[in-house]
Amino acid sequence: MRCESFDNVVHRLHLILLTWILLTIQARSMSGERSTYIIHMDKSVMPKVFATHRHWYSSILHSLKTATPTTSAGLQSTARLIYTYDHALHGFSALLSSQELESLRESPGFVSAYSDRAVTLDTTHTFEFLKLNPVTGLWPASDYGEDVIVGVIDSGVWPESPSFKDDGMTQIPARWKGTCEEGEDFNSSMCNRKLIGARSFIKGLIAANPGVHVTMNSPRDAFGHGTHTSSTVAGNYVEGASYFGYATGTARGVAPRARVAMYKVAGEEGLTSDVIAGIDQAIADGVDVISISMGFDYVPLYEDPIAIASFAAMEKGVLVSCSAGNDGPLPLGTLHNGIPWILTVAAGTIDRSFTGTLTLGNGLAITGWTMFPARAVVQDLPLIYDKTLSACNSSELLSGAPYGIIICHNTGYIYGQLNAISESEVDAAIFISDDPKLFELGGLDWPGVVISPKDAPALIDYAKTGNKPRATMTFQQTIVNTKPAPAVAFYTSRGPSPSCPTILKPDVMAPGSLVLAAWVPIGKTARIGTGLSLSSDYTMVSGTSMACPHASGVAALLRGAHPEWSVAAIRSAIVTTANPYDNTFNHIRDNGLNFTIASPLAMGAGQIDPNGALDPGLIYDATPQDYVNLLCSMNFSKKQILTITRSNTYTCPKTSPDLNYPSFIALYSQNDNKSTTVVQKFQRTVTNVGDGTATYHATVIAPTGSKVTVSPTTLVFEKKYDKQSYTMSIKYKSDKDGKISFGWLTWIEDDGKHTVRSPIVVSPLVVNHR
Amino acid sequence: MRCESFDNVVHRLHLILLTWILLTIQARSMSGERSTYIIHMDKSVMPKVFATHRHWYSSILHSLKTATPTTSAGLQSTARLIYTYDHALHGFSALLSSQELESLRESPGFVSAYSDRAVTLDTTHTFEFLKLNPVTGLWPASDYGEDVIVGVIDSGVWPESPSFKDDGMTQIPARWKGTCEEGEDFNSSMCNRKLIGARSFIKGLIAANPGVHVTMNSPRDAFGHGTHTSSTVAGNYVEGASYFGYATGTARGVAPRARVAMYKVAGEEGLTSDVIAGIDQAIADGVDVISISMGFDYVPLYEDPIAIASFAAMEKGVLVSCSAGNDGPLPLGTLHNGIPWILTVAAGTIDRSFTGTLTLGNGLAITGWTMFPARAVVQDLPLIYDKTLSACNSSELLSGAPYGIIICHNTGYIYGQLNAISESEVDAAIFISDDPKLFELGGLDWPGVVISPKDAPALIDYAKTGNKPRATMTFQQTIVNTKPAPAVAFYTSRGPSPSCPTILKPDVMAPGSLVLAAWVPIGKTARIGTGLSLSSDYTMVSGTSMACPHASGVAALLRGAHPEWSVAAIRSAIVTTANPYDNTFNHIRDNGLNFTIASPLAMGAGQIDPNGALDPGLIYDATPQDYVNLLCSMNFSKKQILTITRSNTYTCPKTSPDLNYPSFIALYSQNDNKSTTVVQKFQRTVTNVGDGTATYHATVIAPTGSKVTVSPTTLVFEKKYDKQSYTMSIKYKSDKDGKISFGWLTWIEDDGKHTVRSPIVVSPLVVNHR
Repeated sequence: MRCESFDNVVHRLHLILLTWILLTIQARSMSGERSTYIIHMDKSVMPKVFATHRHWYSSILHSLKTATPTTSAGLQSTARLIYTYDHALHGFSALLSSQELESLRESPGFVSAYSDRAVTLDTTHTFEFLKLNPVTGLWPASDYGEDVIVGVIDSGVWPESPSFKDDGMTQIPARWKGTCEEGEDFNSSMCNRKLIGARSFIKGLIAANPGVHVTMNSPRDAFGHGTHTSSTVAGNYVEGASYFGYATGTARGVAPRARVAMYKVAGEEGLTSDVIAGIDQAIADGVDVISISMGFDYVPLYEDPIAIASFAAMEKGVLVSCSAGNDGPLPLGTLHNGIPWILTVAAGTIDRSFTGTLTLGNGLAITGWTMFPARAVVQDLPLIYDKTLSACNSSELLSGAPYGIIICHNTGYIYGQLNAISESEVDAAIFISDDPKLFELGGLDWPGVVISPKDAPALIDYAKTGNKPRATMTFQQTIVNTKPAPAVAFYTSRGPSPSCPTILKPDVMAPGSLVLAAWVPIGKTARIGTGLSLSSDYTMVSGTSMACPHASGVAALLRGAHPEWSVAAIRSAIVTTANPYDNTFNHIRDNGLNFTIASPLAMGAGQIDPNGALDPGLIYDATPQDYVNLLCSMNFSKKQILTITRSNTYTCPKTSPDLNYPSFIALYSQNDNKSTTVVQKFQRTVTNVGDGTATYHATVIAPTGSKVTVSPTTLVFEKKYDKQSYTMSIKYKSDKDGKISFGWLTWIEDDGKHTVRSPIVVSPLVVNHR
Repeated sequence: MRCESFDNVVHRLHLILLTWILLTIQARSMSGERSTYIIHMDKSVMPKVFATHRHWYSSILHSLKTATPTTSAGLQSTARLIYTYDHALHGFSALLSSQELESLRESPGFVSAYSDRAVTLDTTHTFEFLKLNPVTGLWPASDYGEDVIVGVIDSGVWPESPSFKDDGMTQIPARWKGTCEEGEDFNSSMCNRKLIGARSFIKGLIAANPGVHVTMNSPRDAFGHGTHTSSTVAGNYVEGASYFGYATGTARGVAPRARVAMYKVAGEEGLTSDVIAGIDQAIADGVDVISISMGFDYVPLYEDPIAIASFAAMEKGVLVSCSAGNDGPLPLGTLHNGIPWILTVAAGTIDRSFTGTLTLGNGLAITGWTMFPARAVVQDLPLIYDKTLSACNSSELLSGAPYGIIICHNTGYIYGQLNAISESEVDAAIFISDDPKLFELGGLDWPGVVISPKDAPALIDYAKTGNKPRATMTFQQTIVNTKPAPAVAFYTSRGPSPSCPTILKPDVMAPGSLVLAAWVPIGKTARIGTGLSLSSDYTMVSGTSMACPHASGVAALLRGAHPEWSVAAIRSAIVTTANPYDNTFNHIRDNGLNFTIASPLAMGAGQIDPNGALDPGLIYDATPQDYVNLLCSMNFSKKQILTITRSNTYTCPKTSPDLNYPSFIALYSQNDNKSTTVVQKFQRTVTNVGDGTATYHATVIAPTGSKVTVSPTTLVFEKKYDKQSYTMSIKYKSDKDGKISFGWLTWIEDDGKHTVRSPIVVSPLVVNHR
């Protein structure tokens, strides 16, 4: 597993994208040393003598030849069971030597085995940005998610956060089977009608690292990530939340009345075995939606614990919503969680900016960007514009600067300048930059504002020619309805999915940059200068980890409004109503790719539109067998497929890479030096979920250089739940430069009431670059 | 005029007692240079040809011989009128040369003249500490001061402060004649039902300093002091007010429904002529109570603009409440505003502390004092206890300290240590001190806590002997109901009054240390490290300036509850019900005098008790003529008396230093080397303001070494408003060491319902030490 850290890219910004420093577990080569493996078993062949699957698995483990004792630190006297799994998958995790593993492979019922791996982890004006409101649409239609239980697989929860108070919450649904697990600094009374369950899974971590110091051995979040994601998906209303005076307002989750159940599977580290155990338990406890802001990079579907466990969830009607990862913008194909049966969520920006006002002595007021975390007084100070100092590249030099505000040139090295200014502790500084990374990630450790290059000439002219030029700066301003928004976040991982490139991923984009949500009060959320760290109850962080719970919250609301819908129906509704346009009514732009028009490989079908998803008109449904048919087409062995499906009742009657999915991706091989023309045909069936009769007509915007044919171009539905099928063919050319092109197929209802939009992407087939 | 600055005493504390750096106006000696004089006139001799007093004064000025022109910068072509006064006094202020002044002295109607002088300037769990509550007592009895108008003579007001919103305020009383004066950054729409008037008086300042740059030429407060005092006296309810997370709660004034009228008479400087103009206008506008948190040091009553102007106010039934000054604890007799016809207010501490928790690695938690203005993260850091570093006296040395928390020895130089730590920016520090000055004035610029010497051994033992000793610190805690409280603030100026030593001053004590109230958002209210200043909408400051508006607010509530009472009755009620005991039921202690029992020269009769003052049982009343009789005893000339009284209708039928005052002071001359026995007799008349018949018995606690005789010792009142008289004789000895002794005369009603307590002080006569 890889660590996703932005430290090198965004040096000195402490509010980095949320990532976990992970323990990399290497499969140990010495035969006597044991390490953790996940073992998938075919439960249908379990001998009847065993009362439970647990007995069977234990019996198998006991029957294994014991490894020869060695002096190695990894030695355990016998193979040892860590978890048994029965919902997400059939099987168990265990500490095994390689010899024992080989022995196990010969056991009846053995399906597959792979090493435990570390997981990669990937908030609240956003409800307004998403147009959620108490008058119309998804909030009132779903009673704000009141009957819905969201299982969050994450780093735990801080139960005392005001976001988890249960003011205004009704009785817990009777079907709930979860529990509030006691542990270090955590007792069962910490759960309530909002936080209805909390469990912790660290046995895998301890097994892999027998001497490991567990920071917080309970469902309590010692880190912040899980508190943030779970309050984003379903936090209660909290007045007066802010990040040091920025983004002040009433915080709330996307589904403010939904219930939260926390499954802690990671602290500073997280491993496959624990993640599966958490999802397994969530399914057993009866959650309706699972939100997972983490992922495993470059693993095949049959070794991806999220792919495996979410298949079982999908079968039971539990939608799993996952983050796409933070490995953008380049290269293509870095996305994780590109799993056909889940919702994969990319991150976008929010129509909000954090600003300060720079008022010059001549009266000119310039709004600049800032997130300095205190109400600094920078009042009528001299402006210093000096050839040497204004490079702002030497904290030594700057430390000798005269009293006043240093103007830093636009050298293109904004992070180095921020660093130098903070270390030198000059009185204040003005930076000139329009680097979107800064505005997406935040952080400013010393009083200053970042002004746009277009505002710079007026400032510099005054600084050069004014009589004793002076300026005043104010902080802690929040501006909403900024334009254009959303944009694709530069960091969001791009498709195609390495583990299943024939399904377009990500599915959609949700707000992910500088999302305000709850945090652990013991964490460092801001810094002043070089020596002082601050904490806060709410913080703003950025990442697909923050986007995912927005989509999870929408899924929860849809589950509340449409209890009869399948997982595929909910996802289809979210995808086909997503908005590819920003608030200037232009195509959403990609902050990571020089503000070019964003491709669906970055944002899927566009930004989620919750109220649109409530009433999508048509949906693209899919059954578990449909996914199996896809798996059957993927050159997987029977046992690899069984690892995912758990059941031999699934067969491969039809081998099709063409799932009934609400989007299209046509791939070409970049190996050819010459341009090759390819035709790909897609078959789709749509179900009318509107009321009564409806007629839809197809509108196509073909990807540049492609020809798209749809047949038929009119679909007539006699009544609700009627199904109609169509084919879409695309004739396209490979491109030796690996160009991506994209377009749209939109089914528009005659009365204009429903618009069902699917992206069409032509993309090179990207080779995994683990 | 003197500047009251605590900079030398309390080095490095930026939240110092509020004081103004004042412009000292020297009477200019060259005959051609003009400076400002205040001229008192006998209006009764105004010739009938003049339509108004202004015409008369102008005519007199025009008739003066013009000064010989010189090259001096002070030259003005003619004498010039600045203000005319008609309520606070009869007369005017004018720019005059000394030649012109001599000429003016011969004009008919001339009473007196003196140079313009600079004024010396002297919030919100306190309402709880004073037991104000919505259920019983003074708040409901006065409708929270709804019909009362408080004129605040101060540095202006910040009208946008939430404390001056008029939510919940009823119509402005019809009798109000004031106005909302426009000016720089101030327009008339900024007044409302809470802030009903605002005016600015700076003509005197400009006249004295023709080229002066006026920072804010309008009633707007550019400084903070007036915003703080006026919100303390009558600010509206403001939820969520705090000082950087300390003292968080709903701020409110003592009289939360009373009206505020601001008379700005000082910015960075303030002069006599402007102060008189402000009080003059307040009387004319119809205010009910005047609050003045400033004073003039070491001026005789007939040259003290507050004494002069407040005499007129008293005649009209307007109580004037003033601060005692911040020149304590030593020597005696530094008090200002020791004026017989006003209420003089000393400052005390509040039962509140601001703390952080220091948790050692061994689990021991120590509560320390801190006001570090941010939520610093100091988590599990090594404790550093090192012979050299722990002196904490060198920022150079400390800057090289290893990572961790420095323990600073109790060297007795806490301010130097705070300074060195802040400059060095070590990770955090622990100080050991119980210096009350620190806890009364606040301020801590770098993460740290100050622990009590009694907690130090456990800390040091752990730091010395623990295995890798570590600690965690948290901040922003507020503890209320701390004991003992109140104590006399170390800084409060002590009596006897230099300008009228025969009347015991101060009258009472009110909360003054670290009072939370509104501030100007542009001010610096905290500092982090050496380079960063912060601002806030509310701040905590300390001084008699903060105590005075508490008493003014109580006076406003009493005016609302008892509209029929005279100024003397209101003051008497406040004095005789004041509490000399703290919340441990012991005598209030003096923080400035090594925690000895506080004398009435420090605290008057004790801490104000608003609910007690509502129903005092008996009152000591006084008429304007009573004060004149006192003045007649003071070796003043007729014109000096007329300067105060403005009217020749007052005569001196009876010369008596013995005013009918609710307290007693017996003075002795310290010149004698031998002890002399003195007998002093006081005559008093009390009025029954309880309902119906009442019998009171005298209880005396005589000052040490004195004998006190009261006659009669029983007073029987037949009905409400009955008056009874008694004499109190004290036989005491002079003391060559200048010892102060004190006791109490308490009239206790038979049924115990009312207790009327007066302090008795034996004090050396202190010579003015200007």
